[in-house]
Amino acid sequence: MLHCRTAGEIGLDREEIRRHNVGALLRSVHLSGGISRAGLTRELGLNRSTIMALTAELTDAGLVREELPKDSHQQGRPSLMVLPESERIYVLAFDVAVDQLAAARIGLGGVVLERAVAARARAGPDLEYVVNVLARLGRQLHQAAPPTAVCVGVGASYCGMIKPGDGTVRFGPDLGWVDQEFGAELSRKLGLELPVLVGNEAHLGAVAEQQRGAGTGMRNLIYLHGDVGVGGGIIAGGKLLDGDTGYGCEVGHIVVNPMNGRPCGCGSWGCLEAEVGERALLDAAGRPADLFGRDAVRAVAHDAGRGDPAARDALRRIGDWLGVGVANLINLFNPGMVIFGGMLRDIYPGLATYVHTRIAVNVLPVARERVRLEVSALGDDATLIGAGELGFSHLLHDPLVEYQNISKRRSQEQI
Amino acid sequence: MLHCRTAGEIGLDREEIRRHNVGALLRSVHLSGGISRAGLTRELGLNRSTIMALTAELTDAGLVREELPKDSHQQGRPSLMVLPESERIYVLAFDVAVDQLAAARIGLGGVVLERAVAARARAGPDLEYVVNVLARLGRQLHQAAPPTAVCVGVGASYCGMIKPGDGTVRFGPDLGWVDQEFGAELSRKLGLELPVLVGNEAHLGAVAEQQRGAGTGMRNLIYLHGDVGVGGGIIAGGKLLDGDTGYGCEVGHIVVNPMNGRPCGCGSWGCLEAEVGERALLDAAGRPADLFGRDAVRAVAHDAGRGDPAARDALRRIGDWLGVGVANLINLFNPGMVIFGGMLRDIYPGLATYVHTRIAVNVLPVARERVRLEVSALGDDATLIGAGELGFSHLLHDPLVEYQNISKRRSQEQI
Repeated sequence: MLHCRTAGEIGLDREEIRRHNVGALLRSVHLSGGISRAGLTRELGLNRSTIMALTAELTDAGLVREELPKDSHQQGRPSLMVLPESERIYVLAFDVAVDQLAAARIGLGGVVLERAVAARARAGPDLEYVVNVLARLGRQLHQAAPPTAVCVGVGASYCGMIKPGDGTVRFGPDLGWVDQEFGAELSRKLGLELPVLVGNEAHLGAVAEQQRGAGTGMRNLIYLHGDVGVGGGIIAGGKLLDGDTGYGCEVGHIVVNPMNGRPCGCGSWGCLEAEVGERALLDAAGRPADLFGRDAVRAVAHDAGRGDPAARDALRRIGDWLGVGVANLINLFNPGMVIFGGMLRDIYPGLATYVHTRIAVNVLPVARERVRLEVSALGDDATLIGAGELGFSHLLHDPLVEYQNISKRRSQEQI
Repeated sequence: MLHCRTAGEIGLDREEIRRHNVGALLRSVHLSGGISRAGLTRELGLNRSTIMALTAELTDAGLVREELPKDSHQQGRPSLMVLPESERIYVLAFDVAVDQLAAARIGLGGVVLERAVAARARAGPDLEYVVNVLARLGRQLHQAAPPTAVCVGVGASYCGMIKPGDGTVRFGPDLGWVDQEFGAELSRKLGLELPVLVGNEAHLGAVAEQQRGAGTGMRNLIYLHGDVGVGGGIIAGGKLLDGDTGYGCEVGHIVVNPMNGRPCGCGSWGCLEAEVGERALLDAAGRPADLFGRDAVRAVAHDAGRGDPAARDALRRIGDWLGVGVANLINLFNPGMVIFGGMLRDIYPGLATYVHTRIAVNVLPVARERVRLEVSALGDDATLIGAGELGFSHLLHDPLVEYQNISKRRSQEQI
C-alpha cells in the first residue's frame, strides 16, 4: 500500500512514487533473503517492466544482485532471483544483555556475518564502561570487514526502557541506569558518523521473530524475553505496540500476585518478572542465593527433566505464574502466537503444561481457539537481529538517497 | 493521508481520489459537528477550490449544508460553516445493555435525536425476545421521523463477544447466548433492507469516547465499561485493538486475584470483573444477595459519600482491585487516558484514591508520567453513540455512492 504525501492534489510526484517503490522492493529482498522477479511482481503489485527497472537501480548501486535460480525444475525460462548483497552491505548490531555485551556485523537479508562478545559483570557497569567495550567490539568487526563492504547503519538492543527516537535509556533497572545518553555516546565512541538507533531488547526480539522467526508474517504476536526479569514485545495489528510515549509492553511489571508477591526490582512486588524471573526460579528450586546466570537456569531445567523433585516443583510454580501472565495477555491481545525467548526458551518446554492449564482455566474459549505457544526460532540471536533491523531502517526507508549519502561521507573520509 | 489502491502504477484514478476526499470531508463534518471551510482546508490538506467543489457535491446530495457562522467577530469575510444535515440523515442505534434494551435515532454529527427504552429482566431473555423488542422500538423511531429524513444505517451494541463482520454473538455470558445470529435477525425483523452492524459495548464505548468524548483525538486510551461485569475497549495507535480473530480487549477476564479470587461468570475465578463488578461491590458493602442493579450501586456510592463505614470499606476493596487491573493495563499499553464508563462512572469518584495508590506502586514511573484518569464524558450514551458510529460507517466510507444506493432502494419501496 502506498501512503501518498498529500491527500488532495491529483498530481502525484513520480519521483516520490519511484523512491517508495525502490524501498518496498529492497524491503522484500531483505526480508525474504532472496526472491524471484515473479515473486516481487506478485508481492508488490507492480508490473514486470517496473520491477526490472527498479531492480536495475538497486543492482547499479550495489545493493542487490540478480542470479539464475540454483536448481529450477520448471519448464521455460526461469524467473531471475533478486538477492541481497549480504557480504557487502551490512549494519553493526549491539546487544547489552544481562550477562554479556555483544556486537555483530549483520548483512542485508538479516544474515549474521560475524560476532564478538564480552562477558559483563551483573552488578552495575556504568555507561562509560559499556560504551567503551561495545565500541571496541564494533570497531574490530568494522575493520575486519572486506574493503568493499559498507556499513549502512547501527542498531543497539538494551534491556531497559528507551526514550523513543533519541536512544536515551530512561530506566535500566538491571544496570541501575537512569536517563543515560547511550545511543549518542556509542555513536560518538564508534566514530563511524552514523547514528546508533536504540530499542528495548524484547521489542526488538518481537520484531525479529515477526520478520524472520517463529511468527513470520503474523499480525498479532507476543514475544516474552526472560533474563533476570521478563521483557515483552507486543505486535498488535502488524505494528509494535508503543503506547502514548513509547513505554508500553511492560509485561514484566504486570502484577500477577498482588497479595503475597515476591519483591521486584522495580520497587513493587508480585510483578510477573518477580514471580518467574531467574531469581524466582533458582529460589524455588532451592539453589544457593549466590548462584545466578543462564547455566544455573539450564541446570534446573535439566534436573527437572531427570526427575529431580525440587526442580520439578520449581518449574510447576514458575509455570503457574507464567501461565497467569500469559492468560492475561491472551485475553487482552487475542494474539495468534506467544513466543518464549531468552531464558524462558530454556525452561518453557519443562513448564508448558502448567501454562496451558492456566490458559484453559483463565482465557475465554473464543479468544484461545487459535493461539499457538512457541519458543523463539532465532534463539539468543533474536535481540541482536532485531537491533540489526533497527540499523537497516534508514536504508530500507529510502535506499538510493540514504546509500548515496553514506557513500559520499565514506569517500570524504578516505580523502 | 491518502491510501492509494495500488502501490505501483503512476496513473492514479481521479475518480477514486475524489471519492476518498468526499468521504474524508464528510467524516470531518460528522466528527466536528460543524466546521468552517477554512478549517476543512487545514484539516484535509486540500486547497480552497477543491473544498468548495467537494462541499457542493455533499450539499447537492443533502448530506451537509453551508451557513454563515452565528457570531463572527472576525474582520473581513467569515469562512462559511459546513454543517451536517443532522435532522435529515440519521442512523438507528441499538443497545443491549444489562438492565435495558435501548434504541435511538442518531443524526449525522452524532446527535441523539430521539430515544426509546424498554426494561429487561436480568435472567436470560432469548434472541427472539430481544430482537422483537428492539425491532419494535426501532420501527417506532423510524416511523416517527420526519418524512424527508433518511435512515442510512443501523448499528447495535451488545454486552458480549461479537464475531467480526457478521454480527453473530459468539458468547454473551450475561444473557447466556452462544453463537446467536443477532445482527442478521434484527435486520430481518426491522425490515429496512439495511444490515445491522454489531459491536461489543465496551469497544463501541471506547470509539465513541475517542471520537467525541473524554478522550477526543487521543491515539492511546482505555475505556472500561462496568455493568454486571467489566468490559474493555482499547484504542492503541489510533485504532481499536482487535487481535487476531477479533476477540481482544477482554479486560474483564484478566486475572487479578489468582489465589483467593471470587468465582466469575466465565467459569474461572479472580477475574477483574469478579472482583470489581456489581455483585462484588454489593457483597463488599454487605447488601442483601437479592439486591442488584444500577440504583443499588449508586446507593453504595452515595452512602460512602455520607461516611457509612461498610460502603466506604466496599469502595476501598473494589478500588484496590480495580487499581491492580488499571495498573497492569497502563504498564502494557502506556495509554494517554483511562476512562471509566457504565456503573464504574458512578463509583469511580469514591474510589479514585485507591486506584491512584495502586498506580503509584505498580506502574513504572516512566509509563505513568502522563496518563490521565477520567470518567466517561458521554455517560450512559457512550455505547449507544458508538453503535451509531457503526451505523454511519458505510456512508462515511463512500458517501455519494452509498447514499445513492440507499435513495434508490427507498424510491423503489415507495413505488
